[in-house]
Amino acid sequence: MSEPTSRPTAPENAAPSAGEGPDFDKGGGILPAIAQDAQTGEVLMLAFMNAESYAETLATGRAVYFSRSRNRLWRKGEESGNVQLVREVRIDCDGDAILLKVEQVGGAACHTGHRSCFYRRVTKEGLEVVGTPLFDPAQVYGKKSG
Amino acid sequence: MSEPTSRPTAPENAAPSAGEGPDFDKGGGILPAIAQDAQTGEVLMLAFMNAESYAETLATGRAVYFSRSRNRLWRKGEESGNVQLVREVRIDCDGDAILLKVEQVGGAACHTGHRSCFYRRVTKEGLEVVGTPLFDPAQVYGKKSG
Repeated sequence: MSEPTSRPTAPENAAPSAGEGPDFDKGGGILPAIAQDAQTGEVLMLAFMNAESYAETLATGRAVYFSRSRNRLWRKGEESGNVQLVREVRIDCDGDAILLKVEQVGGAACHTGHRSCFYRRVTKEGLEVVGTPLFDPAQVYGKKSG
Repeated sequence: MSEPTSRPTAPENAAPSAGEGPDFDKGGGILPAIAQDAQTGEVLMLAFMNAESYAETLATGRAVYFSRSRNRLWRKGEESGNVQLVREVRIDCDGDAILLKVEQVGGAACHTGHRSCFYRRVTKEGLEVVGTPLFDPAQVYGKKSG
């Protein structure tokens, strides 16, 4: 957020090449990926990527994760329409974590309707909900959860 | 970042209680934890926590992670002095990811001297380093790396 350069990344044209991307072997094939609002800096969610989802993310400019529970690619927004347009991709120092700076279509990244999945704050009295949902999950996802 | 409320958390006094914190069982005992600069919103690093490191983080108000490579608690800054003062703790919707909003003592979270571990941007031409290190790792860590 504080970097002086603002030259745009072009993830839709960026092809991953050996030694120049995440090392998925370090995570047994999957690595954690953070989605951050490109404008506000708000951390929206944490998910996982495998090499295939990473490659598709770069190729399409839309965030694609790997769902560990469903054991398949998870194209964010495939049910809700709330896709994430990827504005920038960062790799950490060890090559074992990914940061996406995204534009969250629909405003809410969380399946609960909250902007961020991190809408619960730890306090002495327990968890405190911060903010209000932008949509009703029942309307977006029907009777399914998630 | 965009939430209207700004009531401070007091993580140093917050004790974790059942059902009111992360579910470490979901990650086989460890969960990913994001450290974000509490002031600028910059994502500084991603590490992992187990229940013990989480409890110590809440008890001390300093970020404590679990090092998977060393298989022990990693009190951030234990070598460099660059501790992270925890200003707020968030839990995600599924209870399987943690977000710390921190004040990074020394300014740089990364062992390379960069403010953020995510100092490499993915471009069509490969990885591009963003920003310059705030310190020389050799001076901070001696001849050891990391």
